[in-house]
Amino acid sequence: MRTLGIDPGTAIMGWGIVDEQTGALVLVACGAFTTPAGLPQQERLLSLYNGLQALLEQYRPGAAAIEELFFGKNVNTAIHVGQARGVALLALAQAGVPTHEYKPTAVKQAVAGYGGADKKQMQEMVRLTLKQPTIIKPDDAADAVAIAICHAYTAPMLRRIAETGKK
Amino acid sequence: MRTLGIDPGTAIMGWGIVDEQTGALVLVACGAFTTPAGLPQQERLLSLYNGLQALLEQYRPGAAAIEELFFGKNVNTAIHVGQARGVALLALAQAGVPTHEYKPTAVKQAVAGYGGADKKQMQEMVRLTLKQPTIIKPDDAADAVAIAICHAYTAPMLRRIAETGKK
Repeated sequence: MRTLGIDPGTAIMGWGIVDEQTGALVLVACGAFTTPAGLPQQERLLSLYNGLQALLEQYRPGAAAIEELFFGKNVNTAIHVGQARGVALLALAQAGVPTHEYKPTAVKQAVAGYGGADKKQMQEMVRLTLKQPTIIKPDDAADAVAIAICHAYTAPMLRRIAETGKK
Repeated sequence: MRTLGIDPGTAIMGWGIVDEQTGALVLVACGAFTTPAGLPQQERLLSLYNGLQALLEQYRPGAAAIEELFFGKNVNTAIHVGQARGVALLALAQAGVPTHEYKPTAVKQAVAGYGGADKKQMQEMVRLTLKQPTIIKPDDAADAVAIAICHAYTAPMLRRIAETGKK
């Protein structure tokens, strides 16, 4: 299964794609869409939407994952992250990609085995998991890849639990 | 000029369209897009986006207006309003409709002549301004119409100020 992870923001939206290949996770591609600081917010949203649409067209992920909640930021920041997140969720819905949401602690738990892992530990665990020579840059791309890994790990477990329940 | 006012929310998105005809404002249409409470958020956003796209296609406004800031709500609410707002701003950008933002106090000042006007006073001033027999329902539609009136009043003033500046 191919999973797209997204870390939404208006100024920068990280993305990362991982494939599950015979039990191992492989990094397909990752990056970040950036929009210039001076650009009106509508043009920023349009640019993110177009970028994400092109990405979905090119890589055709089978699932997407995004962080569920948003902690410790102010209401004004939340509005702007919400706007970028809304545009991302719309593009995914239009492309028919099932989208899953994970709390930040769930992402940390799945990737680093510890819900309180810090940024550096997470980046190192992402690097090790995907057998990369160096940590992934920029940070937003690494965050997005971590979310994709979280879903790639969690989805088969959820399927097994559902199957066990049926027996 | 035809102005579309939008009051964004995920559960309900109010909209209102006013025309300026020889100095007077005329209500063209108004309403609210509602999405069922049980619907996944992505389908809600898709439904709002499709509704707004159809509205833009049908009424072809020359400008749009939306509230700029968002006060006194919690971060979780802000994320959800932000998502709906992002989808609305995207649809407007795609349709090439210039979009203006006004603070809630600016909308109250423009419509009721007083930045501290309450909901009831606003609804009554909207009714009087547009010569309606009763106040506009639902409340979200009335709020959206107020935002459209604010822009319809403010835009010519801004143009005049810009022209005076050139002399």
